[in-house]
Amino acid sequence: MDIREEALKMRRKAHGLLEIRAKVPLATRTDLSIAYTPGVAEPCKDIKADPDLSFELTCRGNMVGIVTDGTRVLGLGDIGPVAAMPVMEGKALLFKTFGDVDAIPICLDDKDPEKFIETVKRLEPTFGGINLEDISSPKCYDIEDTLIEQMNIPVFHDDQHGTAIAALATVLGGLRLVRKDLATARIVMNGAGAAGSAIGRLLVNAGAKNLIMVDMAGALYDGMPGLNRVQAQLAQMTNPGKLTGKLPEIARGADVLIGASGPGVFTKDIVGSLAKDSIVLGMANPVPEIMYPDAKEAGARVVGTGRSDAPNQTNNVTVFPGIFRGALDVRARKINEEMKLAAAYAIAELLPEKELRDDFVVVDAFDPRVAPAVAAAVAKVAIETDVARVKIDPEVVRERAAARIGR
Amino acid sequence: MDIREEALKMRRKAHGLLEIRAKVPLATRTDLSIAYTPGVAEPCKDIKADPDLSFELTCRGNMVGIVTDGTRVLGLGDIGPVAAMPVMEGKALLFKTFGDVDAIPICLDDKDPEKFIETVKRLEPTFGGINLEDISSPKCYDIEDTLIEQMNIPVFHDDQHGTAIAALATVLGGLRLVRKDLATARIVMNGAGAAGSAIGRLLVNAGAKNLIMVDMAGALYDGMPGLNRVQAQLAQMTNPGKLTGKLPEIARGADVLIGASGPGVFTKDIVGSLAKDSIVLGMANPVPEIMYPDAKEAGARVVGTGRSDAPNQTNNVTVFPGIFRGALDVRARKINEEMKLAAAYAIAELLPEKELRDDFVVVDAFDPRVAPAVAAAVAKVAIETDVARVKIDPEVVRERAAARIGR
Repeated sequence: MDIREEALKMRRKAHGLLEIRAKVPLATRTDLSIAYTPGVAEPCKDIKADPDLSFELTCRGNMVGIVTDGTRVLGLGDIGPVAAMPVMEGKALLFKTFGDVDAIPICLDDKDPEKFIETVKRLEPTFGGINLEDISSPKCYDIEDTLIEQMNIPVFHDDQHGTAIAALATVLGGLRLVRKDLATARIVMNGAGAAGSAIGRLLVNAGAKNLIMVDMAGALYDGMPGLNRVQAQLAQMTNPGKLTGKLPEIARGADVLIGASGPGVFTKDIVGSLAKDSIVLGMANPVPEIMYPDAKEAGARVVGTGRSDAPNQTNNVTVFPGIFRGALDVRARKINEEMKLAAAYAIAELLPEKELRDDFVVVDAFDPRVAPAVAAAVAKVAIETDVARVKIDPEVVRERAAARIGR
Repeated sequence: MDIREEALKMRRKAHGLLEIRAKVPLATRTDLSIAYTPGVAEPCKDIKADPDLSFELTCRGNMVGIVTDGTRVLGLGDIGPVAAMPVMEGKALLFKTFGDVDAIPICLDDKDPEKFIETVKRLEPTFGGINLEDISSPKCYDIEDTLIEQMNIPVFHDDQHGTAIAALATVLGGLRLVRKDLATARIVMNGAGAAGSAIGRLLVNAGAKNLIMVDMAGALYDGMPGLNRVQAQLAQMTNPGKLTGKLPEIARGADVLIGASGPGVFTKDIVGSLAKDSIVLGMANPVPEIMYPDAKEAGARVVGTGRSDAPNQTNNVTVFPGIFRGALDVRARKINEEMKLAAAYAIAELLPEKELRDDFVVVDAFDPRVAPAVAAAVAKVAIETDVARVKIDPEVVRERAAARIGR
């Protein structure tokens, strides 16, 4: 199959991947008077009196804006907001298919982070949540932090946190299989950009004590010059021995090696130098840090990549549909760190210990249990941490999600 | 039927009126690799090389943003962007049902016209067109003018122009029935807000020579103090005799009396004072300037209102779906005055002379010929006036529209 030809043919034929669908009939004058004037004035008046009713009486409650400025699209870089549209549309397709979340692309024609922030804030009445996408680092940090602080709907930069949650789920599965402990395992995270930093932070929050972040300049340590704000914070929380050096030295003897860096960065020598029962996770996409067969050949026991043609696929498709499903169902004001951890544990727990195998330490997005499990876990923690506007039994969230996704 | 209860029940049950639908399947890993990574990179690269391909390869080509700041919603006034959502959603429903246009609500949380303008400009990569909605006057004029000038996709303030086109179509039908001529008929337009001014301007552009605009302060005349920019322009083009006075005096002997003012403003005395075979059109909604039976009783021959429970319904639902269908099909950069006139003529021409009756001078939105006819006429004129990016036979536009709306 020629992927290029198929990808273009599908889009030329359908003119994109998404359309709007009416959920109610409009066949008669009576329908018109209920759906539009004069009937439409009634929900307007009720929402004016109680703005929270907008989540119940309009599509807002299930509507997520996928917002980008197109400054870092896939591995293509800064291709701009117009050319970024296919990715946003593809993402919306995944939101709908795996989470029954109605997501729409919002491609913004301005690269200035301040303007990006003010624009997204102005869009708040339209959406129940905001998924930030394909925004270059380091500006993505300030954009996300500011929006989370200043908006009353969840804001989630999937390239950071979706990736981090997916990676943590695979690492948890792998460690359980090889009977090592997250707290004591020696973990090397190569790449300290947006995704790598988010993985590092989530690992620390999950309890990793022996993590070292590595970037082009070598291992990150507290006080290292040239770090951005997020890297500097991470350097304080990691590398307890203040090691210095480049990846090949740092990786030697590690139990877990994760890459959010670039294609082919993990040589067979590097992988061969890891500890016994090592776990290697290459998140660069579509070409990972090391291909699955090469990593196995070099001696890794558990290998995961973002690719769908290899085992242990580790991809945020398993994450964001369920995260937003859960957050929307309880009308969460935020997606906090606790909810992210809960999502990773929920994915990891779908595979009981006796089903774990070297080539199967994590479920994939097509497993129909994934999004409902993530949604339920996220909803539960949102309620517990007091960011939920409504309280629903998490089991109800799970069942509803399973039913609506199964349609 | 209790409209309030029905309107709320429908929305509570469905959680709004709209959802996103995937136009392509996503059931296997192969589907995923074509619709998302790695396949999605191909349309991105092609669009980067030729941005116009975004209209073909993504949903942008059929996607319209319905943008409001909620400052003038129905007769409810400045209820804000959150409470405005039901109207935007209803509008999107009409766009889809009558024009197969995928329209999404964009409710902006800022009332400053400059910020509104910059926000909508930043959204350009997302959409094939912008429908402005429920923005207060006079700021709606500057917003629309600036956006039309500075954007490369059509921008259309439906409250002005959709209403004007619908009104012109009904007036044309009525005049044909009573065998009077637009150029010589004495026409009084009561109300010089956004809708009334747009009706006035379109009547002038259609050839009306004897038109008088009337507002609370009386007949508008060239040099009248206190007029806004749009009213001052209109005053120059109308009221050739520089008449002064209030509506009851000015309306006396008129052939056509149109209202875009408020409920009950046309008394029976006023309507009774019109010329023989008079045409009365009350556009205030849901309660018009005079109810249909009252106007007939007072002696009007042809009466139209915005209401669906009376004959000659004159409503922009007959207009905007077809206007945007045609503009999108030829990828118009603008919706210019010629296209608006063509839309009105296309609606008027759907009723042949022999089918005209006092209570049937215009077709309604449920007539399946309306949107295809408007789309074809708009596409034709867009090509002729050189605002179309692609040229298509207008008959093809009509047939395609009929087919896609009939689905």
